[in-house]
Amino acid sequence: MNLKEIISPIDKELEEFQKQFSGSMKSKVALIDLITKYILKQKGKKVRPVLVLLSAKLCGSINQRTYIAANLVELLHTATLVHDDVVDDAKKRRGLASINAVWKNKAAVLIGDFLLSKGLLVSLDNGEFEFLQTTSEAVRRMSEGELLQIQKARNFDATEETYFRVISDKTASLIKTCCKLGALSSTKDADKIEALSVYGENLGIAFQLRDDLLDYVGRKKLLGKSTGNDVKEKKFTLPLIYSLDNAPKKKSAEIMKLIKSDSIKKFESVYYFVEEYGGIEYSMKKTEHYGKKAADAIKDFKDSDAKTSLLELVNFVTKREY
Amino acid sequence: MNLKEIISPIDKELEEFQKQFSGSMKSKVALIDLITKYILKQKGKKVRPVLVLLSAKLCGSINQRTYIAANLVELLHTATLVHDDVVDDAKKRRGLASINAVWKNKAAVLIGDFLLSKGLLVSLDNGEFEFLQTTSEAVRRMSEGELLQIQKARNFDATEETYFRVISDKTASLIKTCCKLGALSSTKDADKIEALSVYGENLGIAFQLRDDLLDYVGRKKLLGKSTGNDVKEKKFTLPLIYSLDNAPKKKSAEIMKLIKSDSIKKFESVYYFVEEYGGIEYSMKKTEHYGKKAADAIKDFKDSDAKTSLLELVNFVTKREY
Repeated sequence: MNLKEIISPIDKELEEFQKQFSGSMKSKVALIDLITKYILKQKGKKVRPVLVLLSAKLCGSINQRTYIAANLVELLHTATLVHDDVVDDAKKRRGLASINAVWKNKAAVLIGDFLLSKGLLVSLDNGEFEFLQTTSEAVRRMSEGELLQIQKARNFDATEETYFRVISDKTASLIKTCCKLGALSSTKDADKIEALSVYGENLGIAFQLRDDLLDYVGRKKLLGKSTGNDVKEKKFTLPLIYSLDNAPKKKSAEIMKLIKSDSIKKFESVYYFVEEYGGIEYSMKKTEHYGKKAADAIKDFKDSDAKTSLLELVNFVTKREY
Repeated sequence: MNLKEIISPIDKELEEFQKQFSGSMKSKVALIDLITKYILKQKGKKVRPVLVLLSAKLCGSINQRTYIAANLVELLHTATLVHDDVVDDAKKRRGLASINAVWKNKAAVLIGDFLLSKGLLVSLDNGEFEFLQTTSEAVRRMSEGELLQIQKARNFDATEETYFRVISDKTASLIKTCCKLGALSSTKDADKIEALSVYGENLGIAFQLRDDLLDYVGRKKLLGKSTGNDVKEKKFTLPLIYSLDNAPKKKSAEIMKLIKSDSIKKFESVYYFVEEYGGIEYSMKKTEHYGKKAADAIKDFKDSDAKTSLLELVNFVTKREY
């Protein structure tokens, strides 16, 4: 199944979401409306609202609370992207000029803050305190995970254990939140809510494992996709961590020395090292393992188009080439 | 009264706040603790917690809910400062190197997000949904106010009416929130809560009026304080708006032309224009007017040290030279 087929069971609901999402960005300030209209033109894949909607559909039926949850996560996500582009000084986003490129940094940061406050207000105005609690926890974990990764990169002391903690916090926490909120919106059954949380957590881990793997092997498959960024930034991801643990000590020490150096040709050597000592293979196995855990978490739900889509999504995430 | 005397009725409570504030920034991630310890060394004036504590004391007594409110506004404020320094590429903050200067932009943005999520969680964990609602409204208004100001600066169409809307949104909304939350934490009396809200709103407007005035007259009084920034950024504040409205049409047109130009010597001419056509005097009168409104709002409370401090704070804000 491709992404379009995966989202087909919620086509109409996604349209309704889009309408409410546009509405919740409205302001009395003309400049804000101008910028948010532009944001709506930068069409993303809407992975987060899709997860909220599919999870809600699996556990019951999509309702107004589901749209509030989808709005909350998408407003938060959009705010983050706008802020990220300021920090990274990115000039493009989804094929269009970035907000900071068109309206400058100050306005971009303010628009991000505006969207964030709107996400909070949509939830508060509707008394959705549990949605907010879950989401705030995720925001805390996302920042903690990224900062832990920065700390480990600085000290060169990443281990497999801390790696999994990092990706669970920085990536899986929000994916899990999407699935959990979707479930919360359509059922009170604690087992179902827990099942969707476990699904989301493991899907998120599988997603990040695949992402980190593609930073090594992507270039073999696709032209124009840059690889080696993590090595350049001295980020230790699973392929490298595993290989360092399993290669002869002397070999690992050589590679560590190379990584700490500023040699621009180091990715080549690190790549062959990682391939030789099983890092690639191990990462692929782990990705499959977490994908399977995600799928297992929802296996007891009776068959439905939402279930098929969520299972296909696991397949898509663990096998994607970009 | 100087600031030290103003805060003397809440000396001990401010210490307790500081303890809880430090505690609420804690994390399992060592790098976060390192950075937040550094933030605590950048000692600010703690205006916001002071307003929360004094307002609570005026309406009843300071209690655990008061500390939660003070924590929420100070965590939010701290997050904003850290993010601002990234956007402005500021190298210093309160006499020390800024977070972005020491730990780079990425880490600074993440720490800001972390602090923000902690502010939300402190409120949510304690069921303080009303605090959160009030604060989220303020965040929305702050971003809307600043964006409206940017919009007006671009279109050169600021009026006295929009100026007051801008400063009410971008500055007064958070000052008002501090006073309102303090009151909410110690009383259920709607009149008292409203009185403190009105006090905070007007104090905030007076504060910004004085701030904008100092951008014109500061250099006359204090060495080393830069002025003319607003004119440079084509920001229309009250002294200029009033003078443009009241000078002969031809004079105003000349000044407008000068402001739109990139002449680096324009501030000199704009300054004399503003002084000649009454903008300085009018601004001072308006500052006094809003200061008086703030003081009037709490005049029916019976005399106490908290009341004296809040009244002295009005005096301090409307007369400060920096």
